[in-house]
Amino acid sequence: MNKHIYAADISGFEKQYRTNLINGLGGIKSAILVGTQGKNGENNLAIFSQIVHIGANPALMGIIHRPVSVEKHTYENIVSNEYFTLNHIPVEKYKEAHQSSARYERNQSEFAECGFEPEFTAQVKAPYVKDSMLKIGLKLVEIIPIKSNDTVLIIGSVEEIIIAEEILEEAGYIDLSKVKTSLVHGLETYYQAEKIGRLPYAKPINK
Amino acid sequence: MNKHIYAADISGFEKQYRTNLINGLGGIKSAILVGTQGKNGENNLAIFSQIVHIGANPALMGIIHRPVSVEKHTYENIVSNEYFTLNHIPVEKYKEAHQSSARYERNQSEFAECGFEPEFTAQVKAPYVKDSMLKIGLKLVEIIPIKSNDTVLIIGSVEEIIIAEEILEEAGYIDLSKVKTSLVHGLETYYQAEKIGRLPYAKPINK
Repeated sequence: MNKHIYAADISGFEKQYRTNLINGLGGIKSAILVGTQGKNGENNLAIFSQIVHIGANPALMGIIHRPVSVEKHTYENIVSNEYFTLNHIPVEKYKEAHQSSARYERNQSEFAECGFEPEFTAQVKAPYVKDSMLKIGLKLVEIIPIKSNDTVLIIGSVEEIIIAEEILEEAGYIDLSKVKTSLVHGLETYYQAEKIGRLPYAKPINK
Repeated sequence: MNKHIYAADISGFEKQYRTNLINGLGGIKSAILVGTQGKNGENNLAIFSQIVHIGANPALMGIIHRPVSVEKHTYENIVSNEYFTLNHIPVEKYKEAHQSSARYERNQSEFAECGFEPEFTAQVKAPYVKDSMLKIGLKLVEIIPIKSNDTVLIIGSVEEIIIAEEILEEAGYIDLSKVKTSLVHGLETYYQAEKIGRLPYAKPINK
């Protein structure tokens, strides 16, 4: 049996119920640790799931970010420092990654607090997560305000990819099934993924 | 061993290699069928994975959409008709859902061509996918152009949720592990999800 829920029901729900329900509508997504650096060199880490592919050429990715939220340091750091990293999370580390969503102070680094080791390269002025099997270093291109509710879409250009050789296939495909990555649904339920198949480019079938 | 790939490498890659690689960077996401209706009542269906949660109150969701792409009908229909539906895909139907990415003509309905039954309600002027266990009906609120590469972010307000009762928990959580949903990585590799745990709201730990 299906339940129908309408806009008026949603606005009438108790806050926590509404948060749980609406955050779950978009489904399951890779959980990503976003690494940034503050003005005084503090290394910040925060977990995000609203990461989007924007384009392949030029290579661009985006993050949906709420300006007033637990991840405020991330936003401020990207604005001031212009670099950020995206780090896929091995399944063994999903609890540590979730812990990065706690409200730490500016002078506390989530790397040390949650048990991750930072890693740096010459190209990107932001910390990577050493243990991640797929890391992307981005440079800020555009911050787009979303008028409807004051969230922002942060767009960055891909400056560097650090990828475990075992998951990079010949044709450029990334096989995330070889090293289990963490997925998240809503703000708190974690999943792992099992590959079911790769399909060819679809063409209309003449019936 | 890790491989480092730089911006100059990416722009020099052969097109298909670059597409495969860059589309895979954002990770695995729920595959969603977007249902729309054309000016002449044609029921359109197209598979998307770049769906984002924008906010819970008001309840808003977004889709990243390329204006010139196989899914052009979806964009035109949302602009003219102002409604669209998001439909999570049971794992048993992932091949049919992928087929919706083929370039069908305006007068061909992907519902009939790919084997899905449309479903309508009084609240939403766009077709739902009957077999989906989680369907969201949205009304267009805002279309935000992304200057960097001419993609757009389409924002809609949640007008209706149609959810299988078995997956809606008491506190508002949606349990997508009870009915396996389709996930996709890049444009062609499908996954299913296995739940590993729900974690409490994170707070700083005093060491």
